[in-house]
Order: sequence, then C-alpha cells, then structure tokens
Amino acid sequence: MNEKITVVAVDAMGGDNAPAEIVKGSVQAVNEKDNLKVILVGIKSAISSELEKYEYDKDKIEIVEASEIIETGEPPVKAIRRKKDSSLVVALNLVKNNQADAFVSAGSSGAVLVGGQLLVGRIKGIERPPLAPLIPTKDGVALLIDCGANVDARASHLVQFARMGSIYMENVVGIKNPRVALVNIGAEEEKGNALVKETMPLLKNCNDINFIGSIEARDIPEGYADVIVCEAFVGNVILKLYEGIGNVMLSKVKEGLLSSLRSKIGALLIKPALKKTLKAFKTDEYGGAPLLGLNGLVVKTHGSAKAKEVKNSIVQCISFKNENINELIKQNILLEEK
Amino acid sequence: MNEKITVVAVDAMGGDNAPAEIVKGSVQAVNEKDNLKVILVGIKSAISSELEKYEYDKDKIEIVEASEIIETGEPPVKAIRRKKDSSLVVALNLVKNNQADAFVSAGSSGAVLVGGQLLVGRIKGIERPPLAPLIPTKDGVALLIDCGANVDARASHLVQFARMGSIYMENVVGIKNPRVALVNIGAEEEKGNALVKETMPLLKNCNDINFIGSIEARDIPEGYADVIVCEAFVGNVILKLYEGIGNVMLSKVKEGLLSSLRSKIGALLIKPALKKTLKAFKTDEYGGAPLLGLNGLVVKTHGSAKAKEVKNSIVQCISFKNENINELIKQNILLEEK
Repeated sequence: MNEKITVVAVDAMGGDNAPAEIVKGSVQAVNEKDNLKVILVGIKSAISSELEKYEYDKDKIEIVEASEIIETGEPPVKAIRRKKDSSLVVALNLVKNNQADAFVSAGSSGAVLVGGQLLVGRIKGIERPPLAPLIPTKDGVALLIDCGANVDARASHLVQFARMGSIYMENVVGIKNPRVALVNIGAEEEKGNALVKETMPLLKNCNDINFIGSIEARDIPEGYADVIVCEAFVGNVILKLYEGIGNVMLSKVKEGLLSSLRSKIGALLIKPALKKTLKAFKTDEYGGAPLLGLNGLVVKTHGSAKAKEVKNSIVQCISFKNENINELIKQNILLEEK
Repeated sequence: MNEKITVVAVDAMGGDNAPAEIVKGSVQAVNEKDNLKVILVGIKSAISSELEKYEYDKDKIEIVEASEIIETGEPPVKAIRRKKDSSLVVALNLVKNNQADAFVSAGSSGAVLVGGQLLVGRIKGIERPPLAPLIPTKDGVALLIDCGANVDARASHLVQFARMGSIYMENVVGIKNPRVALVNIGAEEEKGNALVKETMPLLKNCNDINFIGSIEARDIPEGYADVIVCEAFVGNVILKLYEGIGNVMLSKVKEGLLSSLRSKIGALLIKPALKKTLKAFKTDEYGGAPLLGLNGLVVKTHGSAKAKEVKNSIVQCISFKNENINELIKQNILLEEK
C-alpha cells in the first residue's frame, strides 16, 4: 500500500440501503478527500450500475467481486465461516492482507464484530476490542466505549477501553487531554456494582489518561466527559436509549406543533432554526463506530445509514491512519506491560 | 388503624424543598382525597409555621416530632442506626408499628432504601425489594423495575421483580394484563449477558405474567412494554439518561427558538402547545417510586420534588392500600413456592 493514501474497503452490500447509498457515500468521500481510495466489495453488476450515476476520479474507486451477502439475522460465527465469498469476509480479508487500511460496513453488527476479531485479529496485548461510537452531547460529542462488543467484561478490559478511547478522542477527534469517566449509579465512592468498584482504583492509577472519576448517566448528554467507559451491556443501553428518547421527543414536539392553528403558524416560523439545533443531537450524524484494538481499522455504521453517514465513516479512516492510532495503542499497551 | 382510611407518614424534612413543598403537597393531598390522613414527621415548629399558611381539615393532618435530619451525603446504614430521632427513622417506625400504612420521602435515596429494609422489613419470601418508578412513554407510562435498589442482582431476583411489577401495574396503575419485558441488547435469542440468558427461560416459565420477551432500550420510550425488568445498575442508567437527554433536548429546542427573530416570533405562538406535549415526557410527573416487597409501602420521590409530586406520591398510597397489593404479592410468592 501507498503510505500516503488511505485505502478503505467498503462492504457495498451491507445495510438497509445497500448498495445505492453505500456507493453514493463512497463517491462523495473520494470526491471530497485527496489521498483516499475506496474499494467497493460486493456484486459487481449491482455496484457498477450505481456507480454509473456519478462523476468521480476512476482511479479512486475500485470494485472487488464478492458473490454472497451476510444477512442481519444470521448467527455471526457461522455466517463468517460459511460465506467465504461474502462482501463482508472478502473486504475484511483485504485489511488482513494489507491491501486496505480500513473496513467500513453498515451490515450485521454481530458479523462485523466477529469478523473483525477472527479475520483482522487483535493487536497483541489487547484483551477485547471494544466498539466505540461517538454520541452527541450538549455542545459536542463523547466517545462511548464499549457499546456492544463484549458483554460481561472484566475490570482489566475496561482499563484498556479507557486508554484506547483516550487515544482515539485525542488524535482522531482532536480533543486535547480528553476527560475519561466511568459510568456509575452515583458520584459517591461507595456506589457502584462489583465491576465498577474493582475498576475504579485501577483507572485512578492510570497516569496516561485524564481520569475524572464516576459519571452518572444523567450527566453524559450534558457533556461532563469526553470518553465514557462502561461494559457493553450498559453501553448498548445508553446508545439505544439515546436513539429512542430522541425519536419520541421529536415526535412529541411535532405533535405539539400540529395541535392548534396558532402552533401550526408558529411551527412554520421556527422550523429552520429547530431543525438545525436538533440535528446536532442525532446519533447518526457522526459517522461510524470504530472497533478499536484490531490490526487494522474496522468501522461499523448504522444499518440504516444513508450516503452522508457512509461518507463520514470512510473519511474518519483517514485520520485514523494518518495519526497512527494503532501505533499509539501498541506503545500504550507495551508501556502498560513494563 | 381504620381499615377505610389510608394513613401516610411523610418525611417532612427530606428533600431539597423541605419542609415548605412537602407540607404544601400534603395539604393538597388531604384536600383532594377523602379517606386519607397524613402524619407529617419532623421538627414541629418548622412544620407548623408552614401548615399555618393553608386551609385544611385539621383531623386529616397530624404532626409527629422528630428532632434530627438525615442529610443526602451521609452513609445510609450508619445514619439509620445513629439518628434514631430523625424524621426518616421515626416515620418508618410508624409504618413498622402499624400506625401508618405508607411512608413517603424526598430524602436521601440510600437512607430510604436501607431504612425501608431494616425498619419496615421484607415480606417473607421476597429476596430483594426493588425500587420501581414510573417512566414516561410515547402514549403513557411504564414501570422500571429495579432502578437502583439492588446492584449485582441474581436471576431469581429479576423473576420476583417481574411478578411484583406486573401486580403493581395491573392494580395500582390500572393496566390490564401488563406486558412484561426483560431489558436486553438485541431481540435475538442468543443475545444478552450471563444474567439475561439465565433469567430469560425463567420468565418464559412464569404463567402468572404476560411475558413478551426481550426489549431493547430504544423501544422503552416507544412504549412497547408496561413493565421493564432489569437489574439495578442498568435501571438506574435508564432512569438517569431519561432525565439527562430530556433536559439537553429541551435546552436545544430553546436554543433553536431563540436563534433568530423569525424563530422568536414562532416560539411565542407554539409555546403553550409545546409545553403541554413535552410535560407528559418528564420523569417527575408521575409521583414517587415504590420500594416493593416490604411489610408496608415505602415511596421515594425525587429530591427536587415540589408540592405536586409530593401530593401525587401520597395519593398513590391510597390505591396501594385499597387494592391490597401486599396481599397479592404474598399470595403470588406463596403460589411460586408450592
């Protein structure tokens, strides 16, 4: 691979809107960024007929054929092992074989997580690779780590999550000295479950991160921390509840606006302003979630991702490569083991 | 005690707005409901000077003196043991000694939970008493059980939570055949952590509840279930995140409304309608959270509770007594053990 160019293998067949939105987002990405190449992996004829709709530099997009598709409902391990010619497996193998730096998919979460670990493999010393999406806060974003990769995690896993998350936030998102906090059910020292109580002193002893202690779920949207550390079950509940409450509150706002003639007229006046502020609070505005700690970057985007999110997910791979995130993670882990 | 009258011992000194709002809410409750008596427990002079502001039937409110106050920051077990003359301990003893049917407090959560268990005591057969607030959904409410009483719960505890929650929703809130669901990180059978996987088949075997399976956090605000079963850490995260996201989204809406002259004019027009629909989505609209499974009713309201929430919390004690919830719980547990 060319050192200067980031090569992203994209699962063209994964997600609710594949291949149309995936291809569209890929075209937008290469049109926006230099030093980027996208390999679209999947059924060639389907990809080509989408690509024909757009103008782009033909050198920056390549198609690699894969005849099978892993569906959302399939048991992940079985799917990865059996469907060797699926877009997901073929694309992950491009990363494994150093033909691509990164992999982006809107396909089955389970298959992406399992495939990433089995095919791309963990960095030596990393116990569990966490899935770490950016979530919106009052005035910015926070990294939620882990949000679904490893249930029943141990304290040592959470410590690695905190370290990797801190590196990612500082170097990819650009937050200096990010505040790292552990999700807890109260601010007092004695609060928490067994896992939190075991993890808390370990995090306090980490000199390489800016650990600020407990964070209650109430304070996550307020933006009190930049890296939100938790085990996967809790992280998944946080991520999904963000989406659920956001959706219901928006529908409540709409219901309110349509409830009288007076409010309908008001609604016309406020619509542009409201749309802008509420947009910043949607979980799909921030590209995909990286699965950290693998020998290559694996990014999972929402199953419902449209072109813009696909583009954002591809573009974030450039910083990941340019900032040498995996080198930083390796150095960090080595330091830890000394 | 008179069988026909519900007697509620109220911690007049607990919470951010004590005693003023606690006394005010108590007066509102007795003025609204017949067959209700409130015993205000705390510093007599402080309570009296608040009571003097209102008109009410003097037979329906009594003051019981308690000279001490348990503060929010105090370690609960120590506080309960040492402050024998605190409003919280004195009021709980009224329930223990059958001088009151129920106890309501806006004071320290920890002290209410510990005090309830130590002083009022568990119903024989109940392993852990869960704290179960009502949370808003798109078109109604759901019972979140457990939301903070017992971290690191076992599967057998969750089964009792499901049963008690179902009884409460059916008989106090009035939802026929309530749908009971277990919080999980995916709808598929194989998903979940060790606790969920162990609990799932046990709940499926419960013939006395309408168990509908897994619920993802995303679907909780949508109102897909009436009783949301989870262990306390997860429940606390759900409750707190509801509050946090709600607050931040409202501030985002306000920010949007004030961002231009056009939107400011629109805001004046929509304000009444919007206020009404969003109010239904606030966690403090639904009175207090019962601590279920004790020999008497213990209700915890928000520390920031104002008169209206205090009133709602007191009023819900009437249904709890009239519907014989504890008898139903006892029968249920006995049935289970046969």
